Amino acid sequence: MNITRKNFKETFPLIVESINEADFLAIDGEFTGLTNGRKSHSFDTPEERYHKLKEGTCDFLLVQFGLCTFTYKHEEKKYISKAYNFYIFPTPLNRQASDVRFLCQASSLDFLARQSFDFNKVFYEGIPYLNPAEEQSLSDALQERHNQSMNNELTYVSPSYESPAFKGPLVIPEEHKSFIADICKKIETFLKDEQETSLQLPVCTAYQRKLIYEAARKRFKMGIQLDTQTAENRDRFIVVKKASEEEKKLVEQKKREADWEELKDAVGFSNVIREITRSGKLVVGHNMMLDLMHVLHQFASPLPEDYEEFKSLAHCVFPRICDTKLMSSTNPFKVNIPMTDLGNLTKILERAPFAKPNIEFAAEEHSYSTVANQLHEAGYDAYITGLCFISMANFLGTFQVPIPSRIPANSPLLEPFVNKLYVMMVVDIPYMNLVGADLKPNRDHVFHVSFPASWRTSDIVQLFSAFGHVYIAWINDTSALVGLNYKDNAGLVMKTIGEGESYKIQTYKDYCQTTQV
Amino acid sequence: MNITRKNFKETFPLIVESINEADFLAIDGEFTGLTNGRKSHSFDTPEERYHKLKEGTCDFLLVQFGLCTFTYKHEEKKYISKAYNFYIFPTPLNRQASDVRFLCQASSLDFLARQSFDFNKVFYEGIPYLNPAEEQSLSDALQERHNQSMNNELTYVSPSYESPAFKGPLVIPEEHKSFIADICKKIETFLKDEQETSLQLPVCTAYQRKLIYEAARKRFKMGIQLDTQTAENRDRFIVVKKASEEEKKLVEQKKREADWEELKDAVGFSNVIREITRSGKLVVGHNMMLDLMHVLHQFASPLPEDYEEFKSLAHCVFPRICDTKLMSSTNPFKVNIPMTDLGNLTKILERAPFAKPNIEFAAEEHSYSTVANQLHEAGYDAYITGLCFISMANFLGTFQVPIPSRIPANSPLLEPFVNKLYVMMVVDIPYMNLVGADLKPNRDHVFHVSFPASWRTSDIVQLFSAFGHVYIAWINDTSALVGLNYKDNAGLVMKTIGEGESYKIQTYKDYCQTTQV
Ligand SMILES: Nc1nc2c(ncn2[C@@H]2O[C@H](COP(=O)(O)OP(=O)(O)O)[C@@H](O)[C@H]2O)c(=O)[nH]1
Ligand SMILES: Nc1nc2c(ncn2[C@@H]2O[C@H](COP(=O)(O)OP(=O)(O)O)[C@@H](O)[C@H]2O)c(=O)[nH]1
Repeated sequence: MNITRKNFKETFPLIVESINEADFLAIDGEFTGLTNGRKSHSFDTPEERYHKLKEGTCDFLLVQFGLCTFTYKHEEKKYISKAYNFYIFPTPLNRQASDVRFLCQASSLDFLARQSFDFNKVFYEGIPYLNPAEEQSLSDALQERHNQSMNNELTYVSPSYESPAFKGPLVIPEEHKSFIADICKKIETFLKDEQETSLQLPVCTAYQRKLIYEAARKRFKMGIQLDTQTAENRDRFIVVKKASEEEKKLVEQKKREADWEELKDAVGFSNVIREITRSGKLVVGHNMMLDLMHVLHQFASPLPEDYEEFKSLAHCVFPRICDTKLMSSTNPFKVNIPMTDLGNLTKILERAPFAKPNIEFAAEEHSYSTVANQLHEAGYDAYITGLCFISMANFLGTFQVPIPSRIPANSPLLEPFVNKLYVMMVVDIPYMNLVGADLKPNRDHVFHVSFPASWRTSDIVQLFSAFGHVYIAWINDTSALVGLNYKDNAGLVMKTIGEGESYKIQTYKDYCQTTQV
Repeated sequence: MNITRKNFKETFPLIVESINEADFLAIDGEFTGLTNGRKSHSFDTPEERYHKLKEGTCDFLLVQFGLCTFTYKHEEKKYISKAYNFYIFPTPLNRQASDVRFLCQASSLDFLARQSFDFNKVFYEGIPYLNPAEEQSLSDALQERHNQSMNNELTYVSPSYESPAFKGPLVIPEEHKSFIADICKKIETFLKDEQETSLQLPVCTAYQRKLIYEAARKRFKMGIQLDTQTAENRDRFIVVKKASEEEKKLVEQKKREADWEELKDAVGFSNVIREITRSGKLVVGHNMMLDLMHVLHQFASPLPEDYEEFKSLAHCVFPRICDTKLMSSTNPFKVNIPMTDLGNLTKILERAPFAKPNIEFAAEEHSYSTVANQLHEAGYDAYITGLCFISMANFLGTFQVPIPSRIPANSPLLEPFVNKLYVMMVVDIPYMNLVGADLKPNRDHVFHVSFPASWRTSDIVQLFSAFGHVYIAWINDTSALVGLNYKDNAGLVMKTIGEGESYKIQTYKDYCQTTQV
């Protein structure tokens, strides 16, 4: 079910209900880009990876969020699922709200385009959002604006125009003087004419409107009310109305209520994440580190500098998560799963030794078919991630006697996989542990080498040729981490090639110490 | 006429013809954002403005370019115009090409969405482009790749997969060994079977394909050819074919020609700009500084650090330009034009003392109606910019005796406006001069003040209260430039308020000297 700005408000109660009744939730995100800045490599520690992703990827925007809820029906021995596909965009609420700048990566947009991603839906109908800090600061600003207009005569400041250059009391520039004098004369005539109740001023620029507001405020202290309106063709003009102080107050009161309602609406999609947090339900994702980081960054709080703080924040917003990419690349699954990308994984898990789970969509509008391939639409990806999770969970059950009909989301069998995020590319550290220390494998067979930019892979291979095959993780043009395939040779490296004219070599341990200074 | 990746190649000759036959061209651009970083203000010099825009706005992307050509028909005394509306997007050509990261501004996308801008057309069908330096470097890389494959046995490197982590000769990881052995056995059987001419290998990951390419290269030195193909459902797999060395060479030759053709196509939209440059025709735009900077940046060369170099570059790419925003805010036009934004300007210039020019579209597909408001579609904006230019040019003619039926684009009457760009917001420097020194107005009545962040406009007004009205240009939270309305008072300022506890004040002259250090 597609959720946009247009149906979000009316659908929200249903979404909350779906979350609350579910056994577990599956999520997925689509972004405007993936990589920027420092490259990830195969010897990153989870902490290094966090910092690289934080710097590189949070400038991109999460523009689509998939949420699929799974509820087990004991009587029927099947899951009922509801899929929601949210389009998300930070349309600025008003001039006080931050006007988000975000990055796009050409190849990522091209990729999404090839999957028929609807960008217009994002930019035309995306659901806005505010994190709690933004909400607070807008709420403070609004309160102050209301207090101010209570306390001074500035009851009709143009809502749409406040150029920083014109914060002072305005001096009417020479070229606008006759125009403004004209307008004032019109208003005067209008006020004297008892027949007329409203006066439409000519279309003019924002700057001229600002001048009119100021001039009218000075000249006509009471009895009138100015309001900027927009015509069909988007021309903007001011309408002057006669109004008693009583009437003006009432209008003001209504405007205020509307302001608060508007702010509440602006929190938008963040409310979905708040509901997920509040529910405490297990949240499943596939290769979900980026999804998680983007969700925190956009809807909860800018990502912390400190790695441990990040873990706390992540655990606080998602008290219980499970990454199907980590599951599928860990035994007992790994031996049966040659390809762990979501598309292939889904297919593999439908066949023996796994089994396609028994699932039904709650209603037509929630449905996806696994036949019509909608891969890379977030709602669909969330759905098949949930399928994969159920298949793998049930597979764990097949080692039990008797085999249970299903393994629920809170089963102790799943605990080894809970609150761990798959770390891509790294061979010896499969996951980031959100609720404890990360693994620290022995890397005595790894060396840091720096060299001239002219070096190629063959030069590094040559340098290490005495020690057999090596695995090279390029850091940049002039340095790499090199791992020996035959770890037994590690002790010989520094003695044999520790000194070189054109290169510098360090043990991994020394390298870590020098980079941490 | 909308021009996208789909019809660009076939339409290009027509576009060139339109440019060549035209009397003048009008252009306009639409961007993914406008402002970022340091704010522009009313006392910017053109050089300061250039640097602010360069830092702030060139990270955004020009995604739509309007070109409208105007050709005068002497017999019929009217202009024939052709409007082209290009959708532009830097789809990366291949892995060697740069994968552009660009910024978006939420409010700008929201603005475009309200104008019914079609983002899908940009990302699905945008015309790619390369600037000359990028073209050269890709051409070099291609040449090198071709030379290399000539010189070594690596004739079939997977074109789609080259992870930086795997630049070395591959060691087949344990978990893939049986899979690769299997594949090799299949190929062996295939080679022995004289009936079969091609063998489709199973779908697998990019990484596995890479392993297959390498393994096959080692095992089967001759007689086979590997090729990665993509199925309907986007699954990718390798097809193995038997091939004599002769056949392999022929295939190779064809592939190379296709590579060069592909590179030529990738230069894409830049060719339009090159044609405009080559034509030497007058190029008209409205408030065109940003358009010009984006065009140079994307299609000619990254913007230079040096301001004078920028002027040379701009003049080199656009030998003759004219900004209708500058014209309309300069006399003899200014006194008759209260609003100079493009929408209003167009309306104003249809009425006395101006006159709607006699224009016809060359054909249905080139047409816009000024009634159906398509404001902010680049092709339409280019069109009405051209209209405005003709009206204003003709208006200059009305001061002649006898009044000529039209003023052509190369008329000396237009010279005062040529090669000057309107500078927004600045009161005393109306334009940037691309072919000479900029104006240096006297600013003895301007002062730089720095103060605590708690200061508001009223504090500055208070500080200067002895000198009458002031004009404040905020630089940031803690500093501003302040201009006196009554310039006669300028001499008294430093004597009277030159020393203060909580603030620091400088003459504009001193300020310029200290900031230039
Ligand atoms: N060491 C290793 N790296 C791989 C392998 N497969 C993929 N990668 C790397 O991991 C990245 C992600 O690929 P993959 O996990 O298949 O895709 P995803 O599931 O959609 O994230 C690729 O860009 C490769 O750099 C593998 O078998 N071994
Ligand atoms: N000093 C001065 N500044 C103005 C005036 N009108 C607009 N501005 C400023 O210039 C900016 C551009 O407005 P405008 O020229 O009307 O729009 P454009 O033609 O579409 O670029 C606005 O955001 C204002 O900050 C004016 O009459 N005097």
